[in-house]
Amino acid sequence: MSLDALVFDAYGTLFDVHSVIQRCESFWAGKGQALSSLWRAKQLEYTWQRSLMQRYAPFSQVTREALAYACEALGLQLTVTQMEALMGEYQMLSAYPDVAPALKKLSGHKTAILTNGSPDMIEPLVKQSGLAFDAVLSVDAVKIFKPAPQVYELASTQLTVPANRIGFVSSNGWDALGARSFGFTVYWINRANAPVDRLGFQPDAIVGSLDEVLL
Amino acid sequence: MSLDALVFDAYGTLFDVHSVIQRCESFWAGKGQALSSLWRAKQLEYTWQRSLMQRYAPFSQVTREALAYACEALGLQLTVTQMEALMGEYQMLSAYPDVAPALKKLSGHKTAILTNGSPDMIEPLVKQSGLAFDAVLSVDAVKIFKPAPQVYELASTQLTVPANRIGFVSSNGWDALGARSFGFTVYWINRANAPVDRLGFQPDAIVGSLDEVLL
Repeated sequence: MSLDALVFDAYGTLFDVHSVIQRCESFWAGKGQALSSLWRAKQLEYTWQRSLMQRYAPFSQVTREALAYACEALGLQLTVTQMEALMGEYQMLSAYPDVAPALKKLSGHKTAILTNGSPDMIEPLVKQSGLAFDAVLSVDAVKIFKPAPQVYELASTQLTVPANRIGFVSSNGWDALGARSFGFTVYWINRANAPVDRLGFQPDAIVGSLDEVLL
Repeated sequence: MSLDALVFDAYGTLFDVHSVIQRCESFWAGKGQALSSLWRAKQLEYTWQRSLMQRYAPFSQVTREALAYACEALGLQLTVTQMEALMGEYQMLSAYPDVAPALKKLSGHKTAILTNGSPDMIEPLVKQSGLAFDAVLSVDAVKIFKPAPQVYELASTQLTVPANRIGFVSSNGWDALGARSFGFTVYWINRANAPVDRLGFQPDAIVGSLDEVLL
């Protein structure tokens, strides 16, 4: 495929959201896995529901609210100090091991992040990771979350690259298909070995890791 | 509260979507509960994702696609005959036991259903239930799913009752809060004893069953 830019999703694709499990475990032994799963599930649900309600709020707020819900649902008492510690973990998520080598291989090409994360969350995370991109784009600029077409359009506009010359990389199936629906060439990194979501589109390529993504 | 009409969500509120478990069990022993849960979760996700992608499809299609995904994810072989049998179950869902007595108590008042269900799914279901409403309204008229404000507006327009004179009843927390955000007076039937979703709004009343809903 001949493309002018590669655009990456952040959470779940470059950075492992479940690297918060250890800190969760330190507060509530034996509950880390369940809390991390429910926290992530609610975080995503809230992005979709708030977008449809036309009640956008920054991802940092949505993430806090999802954590509060998840703790209450699991019967875990959450102090403000614990919430701040867990939100702090989100600025120090581990990058997957395939990320740095893949980006190195792509150096010289135009690369960007396109994320639900608000600038207060994503900018410190990218900075501490040591990874470099030509642009870090947040849905906060358009006040609606993925998979709304306005989000993918933002990347095309900001990078001044037409949709059909952009390669988009995501491990979130619905994000990959939203980008496909908009007109990007899509690599779905199937990190969880999941079925393809039934949303009326297929990824252009299904890969096991970032090594298989080529310009 | 002084209201001119009561509008009910269908799936999960009047009708128990998990009454499909028995049929699931008959096909895949020991998997009925897991399949029903994942089927329902994906069905809802797809409504939100398709709405945001601006790729509306009727709920009957979304429900079939969610079933296909759920079976593949759980490693269950699904034949066309089994799919049609399970979709048929959706037209024969059980009404919760509190529904008929509550509707009887409300007779003489304006009542309606406002549902994600497309007419091909909801009309046979309501008919076989024997329950009577002044109107059965489907999001199919506006081609976007709950909790988009266009959906709640449809009820106000079709019933010719202003939003602030409509009472809305749902067991789905996000649906209740979407309706609240639009301007309805909202009763959340907390059938699952869940926490209140963090979406920036509170239900006007949290009730355990339909008996507690009064005009």
